[in-house]
Amino acid sequence: MSWNSFGRVLRFTTWGESHGPAIGAVVDGCPPGIALTEADIQPWLDKRRPGTSRFTTQRREPDEVRILSGVFDGCTTGTPISLMIENVDQRSKDYSEVAKAYRPGHADYAYDAKYGFRDHRGGGRSSARETASRVAAGAVARLVIPQVRVRAWVEAIGGDTIDPARFDAGEIDRNPFFCPDPEAARRWEALVDEARKAGSSLGAVIACEATGVPAGWGAPLYAKLDAELAAACMGINAVKGVEIGDGFAAASLSGEQNADPMRPGADGPEFLANHAGGIAGGIATGQPIRLRVAFKPTSSILTPVETITREGDATEIMTKGRHDPCVGIRGVPVVEAMVALVLADQALLHRAQCG
Amino acid sequence: MSWNSFGRVLRFTTWGESHGPAIGAVVDGCPPGIALTEADIQPWLDKRRPGTSRFTTQRREPDEVRILSGVFDGCTTGTPISLMIENVDQRSKDYSEVAKAYRPGHADYAYDAKYGFRDHRGGGRSSARETASRVAAGAVARLVIPQVRVRAWVEAIGGDTIDPARFDAGEIDRNPFFCPDPEAARRWEALVDEARKAGSSLGAVIACEATGVPAGWGAPLYAKLDAELAAACMGINAVKGVEIGDGFAAASLSGEQNADPMRPGADGPEFLANHAGGIAGGIATGQPIRLRVAFKPTSSILTPVETITREGDATEIMTKGRHDPCVGIRGVPVVEAMVALVLADQALLHRAQCG
Amino acid sequence: MSWNSFGRVLRFTTWGESHGPAIGAVVDGCPPGIALTEADIQPWLDKRRPGTSRFTTQRREPDEVRILSGVFDGCTTGTPISLMIENVDQRSKDYSEVAKAYRPGHADYAYDAKYGFRDHRGGGRSSARETASRVAAGAVARLVIPQVRVRAWVEAIGGDTIDPARFDAGEIDRNPFFCPDPEAARRWEALVDEARKAGSSLGAVIACEATGVPAGWGAPLYAKLDAELAAACMGINAVKGVEIGDGFAAASLSGEQNADPMRPGADGPEFLANHAGGIAGGIATGQPIRLRVAFKPTSSILTPVETITREGDATEIMTKGRHDPCVGIRGVPVVEAMVALVLADQALLHRAQCG
Amino acid sequence: MSWNSFGRVLRFTTWGESHGPAIGAVVDGCPPGIALTEADIQPWLDKRRPGTSRFTTQRREPDEVRILSGVFDGCTTGTPISLMIENVDQRSKDYSEVAKAYRPGHADYAYDAKYGFRDHRGGGRSSARETASRVAAGAVARLVIPQVRVRAWVEAIGGDTIDPARFDAGEIDRNPFFCPDPEAARRWEALVDEARKAGSSLGAVIACEATGVPAGWGAPLYAKLDAELAAACMGINAVKGVEIGDGFAAASLSGEQNADPMRPGADGPEFLANHAGGIAGGIATGQPIRLRVAFKPTSSILTPVETITREGDATEIMTKGRHDPCVGIRGVPVVEAMVALVLADQALLHRAQCG
Repeated sequence: MSWNSFGRVLRFTTWGESHGPAIGAVVDGCPPGIALTEADIQPWLDKRRPGTSRFTTQRREPDEVRILSGVFDGCTTGTPISLMIENVDQRSKDYSEVAKAYRPGHADYAYDAKYGFRDHRGGGRSSARETASRVAAGAVARLVIPQVRVRAWVEAIGGDTIDPARFDAGEIDRNPFFCPDPEAARRWEALVDEARKAGSSLGAVIACEATGVPAGWGAPLYAKLDAELAAACMGINAVKGVEIGDGFAAASLSGEQNADPMRPGADGPEFLANHAGGIAGGIATGQPIRLRVAFKPTSSILTPVETITREGDATEIMTKGRHDPCVGIRGVPVVEAMVALVLADQALLHRAQCG
Repeated sequence: MSWNSFGRVLRFTTWGESHGPAIGAVVDGCPPGIALTEADIQPWLDKRRPGTSRFTTQRREPDEVRILSGVFDGCTTGTPISLMIENVDQRSKDYSEVAKAYRPGHADYAYDAKYGFRDHRGGGRSSARETASRVAAGAVARLVIPQVRVRAWVEAIGGDTIDPARFDAGEIDRNPFFCPDPEAARRWEALVDEARKAGSSLGAVIACEATGVPAGWGAPLYAKLDAELAAACMGINAVKGVEIGDGFAAASLSGEQNADPMRPGADGPEFLANHAGGIAGGIATGQPIRLRVAFKPTSSILTPVETITREGDATEIMTKGRHDPCVGIRGVPVVEAMVALVLADQALLHRAQCG
Repeated sequence: MSWNSFGRVLRFTTWGESHGPAIGAVVDGCPPGIALTEADIQPWLDKRRPGTSRFTTQRREPDEVRILSGVFDGCTTGTPISLMIENVDQRSKDYSEVAKAYRPGHADYAYDAKYGFRDHRGGGRSSARETASRVAAGAVARLVIPQVRVRAWVEAIGGDTIDPARFDAGEIDRNPFFCPDPEAARRWEALVDEARKAGSSLGAVIACEATGVPAGWGAPLYAKLDAELAAACMGINAVKGVEIGDGFAAASLSGEQNADPMRPGADGPEFLANHAGGIAGGIATGQPIRLRVAFKPTSSILTPVETITREGDATEIMTKGRHDPCVGIRGVPVVEAMVALVLADQALLHRAQCG
Repeated sequence: MSWNSFGRVLRFTTWGESHGPAIGAVVDGCPPGIALTEADIQPWLDKRRPGTSRFTTQRREPDEVRILSGVFDGCTTGTPISLMIENVDQRSKDYSEVAKAYRPGHADYAYDAKYGFRDHRGGGRSSARETASRVAAGAVARLVIPQVRVRAWVEAIGGDTIDPARFDAGEIDRNPFFCPDPEAARRWEALVDEARKAGSSLGAVIACEATGVPAGWGAPLYAKLDAELAAACMGINAVKGVEIGDGFAAASLSGEQNADPMRPGADGPEFLANHAGGIAGGIATGQPIRLRVAFKPTSSILTPVETITREGDATEIMTKGRHDPCVGIRGVPVVEAMVALVLADQALLHRAQCG
């Protein structure tokens, strides 16, 4: 089954393939009266845009978004917002080999197994290019919940982790790695360059924090805030793990170590710790929402890998197209977008039931 | 918002509180003609049932399931299957303190913040007791996909991990920890006993494997198989992390190390590795589906923790009720149930679109 | 496919067969803090209850509802409300013939064609008995929108229509036909008695009005208020037609005749007519919502009708069970319930998007 | 709330306003491997296209559809199909008056009441122009169920009904009224011309028949085939009533008159009548599906009608734009599209559960 919509009340549907004429998203359920122009969306797309440094794919896409509906006199009308991004720099010739043999780690074989047929050009629908649609939709979501700030960064590349003591939010946008630790950023420059030159690739861990989320958002028991965030992030291309708060580390703690004690505060309760990542029972506690997402290394590498052809014969494949040496880096704006979309949806859901 | 249904085509809805008269699930969309009696469900409930060893809560619940609809002459009719489990051993007096003050790590404060009001008895709706409904529904899901085998086990308790070299599937049901490594099981006995006696608690990691899943199941892009599994597992009480395949470890690998090369096999492709956990592009590859789930330590501990009252005043709380020293242990049948429910849903979704 | 849930935000799921142990509904998404006890639901069930006059089926069901979850200290908690009604007076022996041959006009053949198998006792899932679950859920919906009054009545039986000039709302509950015209009620007594004694049956038209619905409710374009009402009513057993406002009569009018002119009023606009039935563009205008629903005559009659057996052989069938001579009469509380459920859902949807 | 998606498994989402740059639909869940080009869709859009005779609006729109995704090498890939139609002939100046005062019978007031704000140009989102998106989506749906033939026609205009004895399916496409009775077509020419010249408008009744629908399609109890058809048709602009089979006429029949007896036939049961319109218990019986839809007269008329301004002051309005004198005529391809979309969705739903 194809299921290209996400959200319960604020819903978006994406469409488009890597090498088709365009990609896009339809955002439905957005409240009316919110000021919105292309200029509110473009900066987030620019953040995700390929070709901005030598550490990302060299495909050149301006990724200019057009709003085709749902906005009048500069404001949302409450009707569906159709967003379209034209594909400009498709070089389908790069992908001729992909038509014949399956790239391990890619969705090629799985799509063929499912649909009996696939658009092989640049990965077709399974390409990370689709995440531009998410980023565009996410920009709308941010405007729905202006009280919330969603910010992600890269915490580790290829197993080399930042030093939390050197965390400086101001650094995140000053280097091509969305890295909050300037020393780590310098190390990663060498690391990613090496991988790029070797035709290899690296995995990454992204951390994300949302502040300003009021206690109460979350839709138990089967649209819990943490479950929705997990689905939203695990569904991003190349993601293999999601943690809320301490995540897997919590499994090694005792109940005493893991407690988040509370005290009376000036403005509601004050929490003395945030092991839970701001969510209890699937509902926001009012603390910062914290999560981490693991990206596998880009599957496209220049080393030949054993594989089979569509006909089932043995062969080798080496992925020659233009690719990110570390796909996790450009995952930063995508994680932010998905988290914003979940939170905006939960904000409206909460209002529906609890006024 | 309250959202108590899960699934797209095979959908289930659960209801009930820890100390109400009963809990239950309505399973809708189940194919007709499947042989089903209470005896098909009861063994899975027994596996989750409290009070079977000193390592779980001492609440005594027979957890006997009744099928109230959807079955005729011993077979499913294609109409909704209503499953009910009566609550027998509720001791509401244990929870009088909970009415007044918030237990850190529990959903108490979040529920009040959301609804302005909560059934505090035993955690009400947020109690892990609700997972019995999931296990009952999951037993039905297993029958929908008899070709699939879903099996989970405990991989680590309190940071003490099994030795993969000693993995023996036959051991899993021979000890109270669902532990496949008999030596680890012995160590955990001491470990959990110690925590229990100290009124403390421990976290755990559960691993789950589903074999027999054909290549092609999965509903990209927003109901991807891995995203659905992540939501299903992250929504289980006390879960803080989910990994598919190598999960976070993949973030430290290079593209060459992470590759899952393919070769022609007797019966479709043969994969030389399974870093991906059997899912590519959100679609099953035909390999075993592998995932890991992190459970935090039980929040109920006998050590007093700083907290606030409903009125916002400072106080301390110590949770005296009957609790699991390691809630992750009884998570095993719950993870299995959720994985079975996702897979059965995806099986029907795949059939809808791809015949 | 089986699809036993209705609603977008306030959702309910029903389960149960005519001759199973019980039937019920799970209402999810209800706002918290609403006073609710069985006594709020029972009067509506009593209104639908069979056996209250000689003009309805003689099956004796107390139809006592139990609330199994979602209510604490007399108030809704925001968690799912499970409602259960036990089946008491099942006489399955009446239905032995139904197991073998298909009753024309009933769902027997269609269910077998769909599922290959069916619970034939009393129509199983397709029995109008299921509508008791809707009435129970509808009673909850009414409490969600206390500003709205939903009231239905019978407008015609067997083609004999009330005189609008004699419409007296106070009469509706004073006769067994929910008839607002006392003269028509007298005529119907003879009419229905005659049909009953002859083992025949009659169709009916029900009218429904909802007042107090504010302008703005409705979810265009694919959950328009009129579309949702049409689905809700057309899905009631035996319904074959739904009209909003003037309905089919509007098709014979000119634009001038059909206009609903507006004037400034004391409290928003004053409408000079209501051909539209209070809905424009799928959104409530603030006028009374008006609709009409056509019920076919009960398919169960004592005249033998040509049919086929399950094996496909020719036979005749005569439905001997206990049936309503005019199933439309007991449709009144069911139409009311479905209209209340749609309106409550739309109220919450409106709040989600428009605050 | 805005809710612009329709369907359960085969889902489509529409977007766009009358005077925006374009309108469109995203069709998700379509099976893979179906041959599809713009040429499969265009003829249905041409059938709905305005300006083809003097009996429809004189707005000139080529309504050329572009497929932007979901098709590769001439076949559907199973991924979302994005369809776009550019708006070419917008004359926004015609609508200046609409910005200031509410047109009775239109959605103007209701949209403002809901959203506080609206795109008034040509009715914005509430314009019947949106139905072009439905027709495009419906063309895809037809290809999903090639065994089914869906055909609609106009049965009455302004109360003047065709003579069933003169029904000739071949006539439907030979006159500008989709009229199967050539004599009625001649009468309607005069009738509609008269209304057009007088600046008046007329209502219409459309009948629709779907043949080739196998017994078993339908998703009881809350996505019954008849309920879905009712929602699909009632949601079309200007529709005020829907009947399945005999519809309201059935309410005047006795059970004997309304029976659809069955006999053994060469190829499954043979039905001796079809009062039910091919649906029992919400499930197709294998007979032709028959329904009727009532369209009110176009609300835009040249006679001034009393109304109020946005500020609530009394005024009169006369709708000067380009409008259909009988909007029901162009409703024919829209009804067909919606019926095809419901049936295709039900086909896939049936396959999901029943294989």
